[in-house]
Amino acid sequence: MRVSDEVAEALAAGRPVVALESTIISHGLPQPRNLQVALELEEIVREAGAVPATVAVLDGVPRVGLDKDGLDRIATEPGLRKLGYRDLAPAAALGLSGATTVSGTSFLAARAGVRVFATGGLGGVHRGWTSVQDESADIDTLSRTKITVVCAGVKSILDVPATLQRLETKQVSVVGYRTDEFPGFYLHSSGEPVDWRVETPEEAAGIMRAQDALGGLETALIVANPVPADLQLDPDLHDRVLAEGLRAAEERGVTGQAITPFLLEYLVEGTGGASLEANLAAVRGNTALAGRIAAAWAAG
Amino acid sequence: MRVSDEVAEALAAGRPVVALESTIISHGLPQPRNLQVALELEEIVREAGAVPATVAVLDGVPRVGLDKDGLDRIATEPGLRKLGYRDLAPAAALGLSGATTVSGTSFLAARAGVRVFATGGLGGVHRGWTSVQDESADIDTLSRTKITVVCAGVKSILDVPATLQRLETKQVSVVGYRTDEFPGFYLHSSGEPVDWRVETPEEAAGIMRAQDALGGLETALIVANPVPADLQLDPDLHDRVLAEGLRAAEERGVTGQAITPFLLEYLVEGTGGASLEANLAAVRGNTALAGRIAAAWAAG
Amino acid sequence: MRVSDEVAEALAAGRPVVALESTIISHGLPQPRNLQVALELEEIVREAGAVPATVAVLDGVPRVGLDKDGLDRIATEPGLRKLGYRDLAPAAALGLSGATTVSGTSFLAARAGVRVFATGGLGGVHRGWTSVQDESADIDTLSRTKITVVCAGVKSILDVPATLQRLETKQVSVVGYRTDEFPGFYLHSSGEPVDWRVETPEEAAGIMRAQDALGGLETALIVANPVPADLQLDPDLHDRVLAEGLRAAEERGVTGQAITPFLLEYLVEGTGGASLEANLAAVRGNTALAGRIAAAWAAG
Ligand SMILES: [Mn+2]
Ligand SMILES: [Mn+2]
Ligand SMILES: [Mn+2]
Repeated sequence: MRVSDEVAEALAAGRPVVALESTIISHGLPQPRNLQVALELEEIVREAGAVPATVAVLDGVPRVGLDKDGLDRIATEPGLRKLGYRDLAPAAALGLSGATTVSGTSFLAARAGVRVFATGGLGGVHRGWTSVQDESADIDTLSRTKITVVCAGVKSILDVPATLQRLETKQVSVVGYRTDEFPGFYLHSSGEPVDWRVETPEEAAGIMRAQDALGGLETALIVANPVPADLQLDPDLHDRVLAEGLRAAEERGVTGQAITPFLLEYLVEGTGGASLEANLAAVRGNTALAGRIAAAWAAG
Repeated sequence: MRVSDEVAEALAAGRPVVALESTIISHGLPQPRNLQVALELEEIVREAGAVPATVAVLDGVPRVGLDKDGLDRIATEPGLRKLGYRDLAPAAALGLSGATTVSGTSFLAARAGVRVFATGGLGGVHRGWTSVQDESADIDTLSRTKITVVCAGVKSILDVPATLQRLETKQVSVVGYRTDEFPGFYLHSSGEPVDWRVETPEEAAGIMRAQDALGGLETALIVANPVPADLQLDPDLHDRVLAEGLRAAEERGVTGQAITPFLLEYLVEGTGGASLEANLAAVRGNTALAGRIAAAWAAG
Repeated sequence: MRVSDEVAEALAAGRPVVALESTIISHGLPQPRNLQVALELEEIVREAGAVPATVAVLDGVPRVGLDKDGLDRIATEPGLRKLGYRDLAPAAALGLSGATTVSGTSFLAARAGVRVFATGGLGGVHRGWTSVQDESADIDTLSRTKITVVCAGVKSILDVPATLQRLETKQVSVVGYRTDEFPGFYLHSSGEPVDWRVETPEEAAGIMRAQDALGGLETALIVANPVPADLQLDPDLHDRVLAEGLRAAEERGVTGQAITPFLLEYLVEGTGGASLEANLAAVRGNTALAGRIAAAWAAG
């Protein structure tokens, strides 16, 4: 694993660092906007007084902290793989490159000593889980990794209530940031309640310190940070297009691994690109909050 | 975490200690009987030659071993939360108080060095899991925590066979205490087989020593101890009232987190309080056996 | 735990060792062929330049490396239990003997410092999991144990796609050995894709070294090695007899723990013994490959 000089120095000096995932760059956004967003998110981290550490694997080497060339490769190299935790050792041994998911990023960031990670939405339990097994490894990684993930909930194409139940079953702590309702990724609220609420980055950092004091199991803290209501996707539009997309997937026989990209693309098109803007607004907000939490944590 | 002086001294001297959970006090019994039972259970531990360590969180401080004032607060403070493992860090950071579930109690007891824990029944897989995800975090905690839990099985309002399967899937050791059938909480037997059987506290302590010798994974040992046949709830009454309660829950649309308290209350009322007496008989028996196992363990 | 002198010396000297499970001897094959196969598999390991370490529990003592007398006991003693990880402590404390499953073998081998393990097929998710919980503890053990398991996939009487999903959900790395399709145990291919592929024992050993370099979670590497196409069970015969067996199980009300032995026996009879020969061909191939991977690992 290679930690960039800037990140290594910040960690050594106890200065705030925020990890960023790279699948949003490689698989989540069209070129060339993806590179612009990657650079913008790093800048948002810096504005909050923290050092950005985008995570990926390049030529078999897990990297925590990418320079401009590294970001450029993730944004433009064709055929990059998505790497979860279980893919890291094969990718390293076979010398491949890839973008890291929430699972892969959480693991590598935590190993490097980075405690705060910003992303858009978590993976979770797929709709249709009553007949087809499909649960993202993100949940298992977070159940076994001490990291704080700032996210806007779970992608709404998944089964959100089932995902929240799995997070409870697997002991991942979840707190709402200035909300009593779990965010709905594109939407301010998913309608589901959340048990704990914090009002400030300092309160979130306090929970992280309590995790350290308790010791024992290494589990994550999810800080669920809603997209601002005025930047969310129109809820009626969301519900209508998502329902259409689910019907279309069924009619066209789209199943398995293919269903997530199909639905995300369907949402982008069916909302005239508004779902992408809401997604980006959520990611920007999460990144800024992660920077503030990292700063509060470093100050503790 | 604060360990009471008496518990700390017993642990330092290698004397037997038994952890007790606190949700039975805060949420499981009506006032003022709950405080009487809390004191009675501590006394049962003492009679077995062990030191009781009731576990809870007071003003954000996890406590292992409560004095009379602490028990009184758990028995009487309105609005106390139920705290599983994943709630401990938020509660600590936010300075709140709460009673600990099997999950929260197991974690805190094990961290304090207490190896034996007595409770009534474990949480598990909810009926209806084929359409709604709902599995207690108790199972995951026991899959990751080296503690011996003496219980009378799994609350019969849950799906007992599914819960036993999950305990197998997640590698939690289960032994029957003088029985080849898994107990039925209110009932002497659930009708389900159990693979291992011990006859004495010394045999249970022997398995704990074997766990230590094997090393590696930290997993729990469940000692499943049936309520004596002459103190059990009448099986026909149990089955009839439970079936009625399940029907009533469906008719009235009671779902999710609300279903457990609804069914437990339905059983108490529908059995004229007999389910509560069987529950208490089970807890008393488990507490006495836990004391004897802790003594055998300390003597080893 | 007792590690045989030969195995202990090999481990101390950094020479290659391959663990072998014992339930195939005790429960998987008829006498006296089972002992012959046990000896043959050990010989295959030796021919690959490695030391065999058959794993079992004898008189309460976990053993890694059995002599001829030990193998003989596993092959002939009536009423031997099948021991997964969670059964090891009870068996040890109660002084019993038993054969170890993939779960029990993986745990004991890893504890003894053996990194490579050869078996036939893994346990997994049972067909019918949408209505009855039943998932082998093998998956949880592999999710928590750093060992390399060479196998020919998952027994085809199970739900193979669901099992592959669970391995993904629980973060177990899976690579195909010279194949892009997950093997089908009796069959060269299950028809399911596998994400990673290695061409040589050295590449597999490279992934194991990458696991060590990454550190952190202890998870397994599954090297999925197909039975050679010319030694596989005839696919049409397999599909027909398996479908018949599943129908027969339903008609006769065979359920729960009884269904696996019923279906395996049905396959043996319905294929005129050909399923057993394909099974053995798979195990032989896995054992030889495990020997070569252990050698490549020891040379690293
Ligand atoms: Mn998936
Ligand atoms: Mn629940
Ligand atoms: Mn099973």
